[in-house]
Amino acid sequence: MSVTDEVLAANRSYSSTFQLSHLVAPPSRKLAVVACMDARLTIEPMLGLKTGEAHVIRNAGAIVTEDALRSLIISHHLLGTQEFMIINHTDCGMLSFQDAALEAKLRETTGTAAVAPAAFHAFSDLEENVRRQMQKLRSHPWIPASIPVRGFVYDVKSGLLREVAMGKTLSA
Amino acid sequence: MSVTDEVLAANRSYSSTFQLSHLVAPPSRKLAVVACMDARLTIEPMLGLKTGEAHVIRNAGAIVTEDALRSLIISHHLLGTQEFMIINHTDCGMLSFQDAALEAKLRETTGTAAVAPAAFHAFSDLEENVRRQMQKLRSHPWIPASIPVRGFVYDVKSGLLREVAMGKTLSA
Repeated sequence: MSVTDEVLAANRSYSSTFQLSHLVAPPSRKLAVVACMDARLTIEPMLGLKTGEAHVIRNAGAIVTEDALRSLIISHHLLGTQEFMIINHTDCGMLSFQDAALEAKLRETTGTAAVAPAAFHAFSDLEENVRRQMQKLRSHPWIPASIPVRGFVYDVKSGLLREVAMGKTLSA
Repeated sequence: MSVTDEVLAANRSYSSTFQLSHLVAPPSRKLAVVACMDARLTIEPMLGLKTGEAHVIRNAGAIVTEDALRSLIISHHLLGTQEFMIINHTDCGMLSFQDAALEAKLRETTGTAAVAPAAFHAFSDLEENVRRQMQKLRSHPWIPASIPVRGFVYDVKSGLLREVAMGKTLSA
């Protein structure tokens, strides 16, 4: 049996005791979280969130890509969220490679170049990465200045979030 | 107190009983899930997944954007996942607007145009959206054909996943 089939069996069990049919689309606590896809982060229990309370956006490295911006703009303007959090974490896989090396490996492994993705967004400094993502949000014309944008590093060894100060304007 | 501060207090409580420091980066069940950011989807319990078992990628509409492709390529090639699931859901906010109207509203509200995002990826047919995302993965040269890519619609009223057949090749 594939993992997908195991997961579908688990979902039938989840559905058999489902009691959340009253929930509506707008997140009740008006929070949107951008976090890494890492398997060690289970966002809702980590943040004490119940189902229905917050939007959760996740990708490799919690990068504020064009796609994350798209999701956050929809989150705020159409579904009413009013606070944004960005969550990176210790021991992130994005610290372990460089874009050019990965692209070279993929070309070699597959024998094919690809148009997209144009970048993998690997990084070498966790806190600087968090600050860069905060800055991208703070500088976007469609994200109101009234929305708090706060950034964090999650420690995968302790389960604790540590806030990253925005600090000085970064160099490009 | 802001919601972010409430969430940080909840995280301190989470950390106080944390017992997951043994987990490593590669997802133990070698699964990557692409799901919508909707607050009514809490992916891990919905799928019977424990922390550490799967990568979770989320955005507005579970769209296989360039960013989701980036994350899945990293997930497979660097962290060893071998199965992909795409999860849309009933009553999705992406069914409720059209890209051009949202962009016009944002220009009017903010008085500013923006370079990115170039598209919002609203859609009018849920199953067709799932099939399009599956097709984008199936046609990417850096996603091996050996990886199962299966698509689902989650029913927010019942908690149940329903599989979407890939079906015929879609028109562009």
